[in-house]
Amino acid sequence: MTAGGAAAREALGRVDEGRALETIQLSVKKALDAVIEEMERSLTHDSPLVAQIGEHLIGMRGKMFRPTLLLLCSSVEGKAEPKAVNLAASVELIHLATLVHDDAVDHSVLRRGMPTLNSLFSHQISVIMGDFLYSTALGQLVSVGDLDALRVLTRASTEMSVGEMRQLSVIDSLSFSEHDYYALIRSKTASLISAACEVGAICGAARYREQLARYGDYLGMALQITDDMIDYTEVRETTGKPTGLDLREHKVTLPLIAALRTMPAADRLRVEALFADCEPDALEIAEVIRIVSDNGGLAYARNQGSAFASQARRALTDLPDTVARQALMKSISYVMERHA
Amino acid sequence: MTAGGAAAREALGRVDEGRALETIQLSVKKALDAVIEEMERSLTHDSPLVAQIGEHLIGMRGKMFRPTLLLLCSSVEGKAEPKAVNLAASVELIHLATLVHDDAVDHSVLRRGMPTLNSLFSHQISVIMGDFLYSTALGQLVSVGDLDALRVLTRASTEMSVGEMRQLSVIDSLSFSEHDYYALIRSKTASLISAACEVGAICGAARYREQLARYGDYLGMALQITDDMIDYTEVRETTGKPTGLDLREHKVTLPLIAALRTMPAADRLRVEALFADCEPDALEIAEVIRIVSDNGGLAYARNQGSAFASQARRALTDLPDTVARQALMKSISYVMERHA
Repeated sequence: MTAGGAAAREALGRVDEGRALETIQLSVKKALDAVIEEMERSLTHDSPLVAQIGEHLIGMRGKMFRPTLLLLCSSVEGKAEPKAVNLAASVELIHLATLVHDDAVDHSVLRRGMPTLNSLFSHQISVIMGDFLYSTALGQLVSVGDLDALRVLTRASTEMSVGEMRQLSVIDSLSFSEHDYYALIRSKTASLISAACEVGAICGAARYREQLARYGDYLGMALQITDDMIDYTEVRETTGKPTGLDLREHKVTLPLIAALRTMPAADRLRVEALFADCEPDALEIAEVIRIVSDNGGLAYARNQGSAFASQARRALTDLPDTVARQALMKSISYVMERHA
Repeated sequence: MTAGGAAAREALGRVDEGRALETIQLSVKKALDAVIEEMERSLTHDSPLVAQIGEHLIGMRGKMFRPTLLLLCSSVEGKAEPKAVNLAASVELIHLATLVHDDAVDHSVLRRGMPTLNSLFSHQISVIMGDFLYSTALGQLVSVGDLDALRVLTRASTEMSVGEMRQLSVIDSLSFSEHDYYALIRSKTASLISAACEVGAICGAARYREQLARYGDYLGMALQITDDMIDYTEVRETTGKPTGLDLREHKVTLPLIAALRTMPAADRLRVEALFADCEPDALEIAEVIRIVSDNGGLAYARNQGSAFASQARRALTDLPDTVARQALMKSISYVMERHA
């Protein structure tokens, strides 16, 4: 595949992806706009620095996937309660808070193609602004006054920080097991997605609360597995080579865990060399990506991702066949088909 | 004053201080022990790293001043509600979370004479552990189920992060006004102390809620002014010289703000030189401390601190004359007399 061809394919993939998301968000479009307004209101502040950063964060907001899921879950039985909008805004603020702290911890320079807070302002400001976002989100949740939603979301927040602590405490990366990996991505990613779905259920579909929480958990697992595969498969427009950012940072994800189980000793030595190298170069990374692929790592991860996706689909079985349920079904394919 | 004499005086001061605190805590001693047990329970975790850090934090816990105030306020009318213990533990966890993030942001090496998390573990771990402490505290508050207490404490947390943002956004330190300074210390320090007192009132003295919140606000202001004066007056045992840490970090506090208003041009030039110097040395710092003192900065700050202390005393006027009220009165003198 040429670099140009790959870039064109990726650009097309992004257009498809955008359309798929639009279809999913169609039935909750108005509520989503209200969520964004609510977020803008919370981030307006008389401290000029807080207001300026708030504006930047609203500008770089992502796909609003968690609020979308919350709103869809809240309307699977028809009408959602109005508080769903406020709760969705709080969930997105919690998500933003974790992104800001993740970028600070990882010293990331870009997020969604835009400069991170730590690169634009400072590391200190990122730490404190993350705290501000989180306590603002909690303050909003308290105003809504739903203790059940508060319980679900504080539990998810604690889980997310525990997940990050788990990641930071990995010493021998190459002995990281599939079991460890699932525990990690469940805390880091699935917990908040599951919480968003469960809180959605609280606002209008209480009888499906358990199913929707389960749906969110499986969907979150599938999403993270797919994200981790993208790191192996996505090709950089400039170089035509995979990014391999996780490998560069010595993060072990499912494709490598699976491939390590079957690869010949010579291949394992090359992997070990990369993990012993503080700054592995592009060639080394490309070689390990080839090894992982040749040893069935990507196929295995794709398979496991699909298994979680099927479980997510099954969790929706008993739900009434509403537009919202259809959009939740489409969200599963959307998660699986992102440019992987 | 010789260095040896100063050190001996300081050591004696610490003994007096310890005794004063013991007297204040006497009537809530049992409840305070229960608070520590509750904190230990919350920080016990199946992640070994989280558990290890939790143990370290319990070991380096401070004077438990905020839980003490909460417990005292909850019993000014006699019997406190049992939930006061859980709420006091949450308040101390929130306080710990902010200390951990402050140390991370300031790259501090020591806190209460013990190594900080960022020096013992890593900067990343401090950021994430702070998040864990805060969401654990919030989770506990949610279990107690008191929306009023949650409202008060999430508001204080937001205020504290806004205070930190204010501090980080000061560009021209020397134009920082007395008004700015009060806004800063109100957010950074008084907000949580006031919240602790208000939450205490919620657990057994609801009719004095407004007075106790006000008491906490004034007490917090007096406490921070005194802390900032200590930075000018406390003498290091090793050198016999004042620490002047704030000046070293170009932080402007009340003594300097007051002195700048009256000092001769030549003195102002020396202050400006220190603020233009990235790494001011001990001599430069000692000289500016002398200038601040000679121009009445310390006297002014002492005066303002006393004024806040009087307001704190007045806020207690209508309260019944219980042991708890007496201890709250003593807390004011305790705050004012710490080795300043």
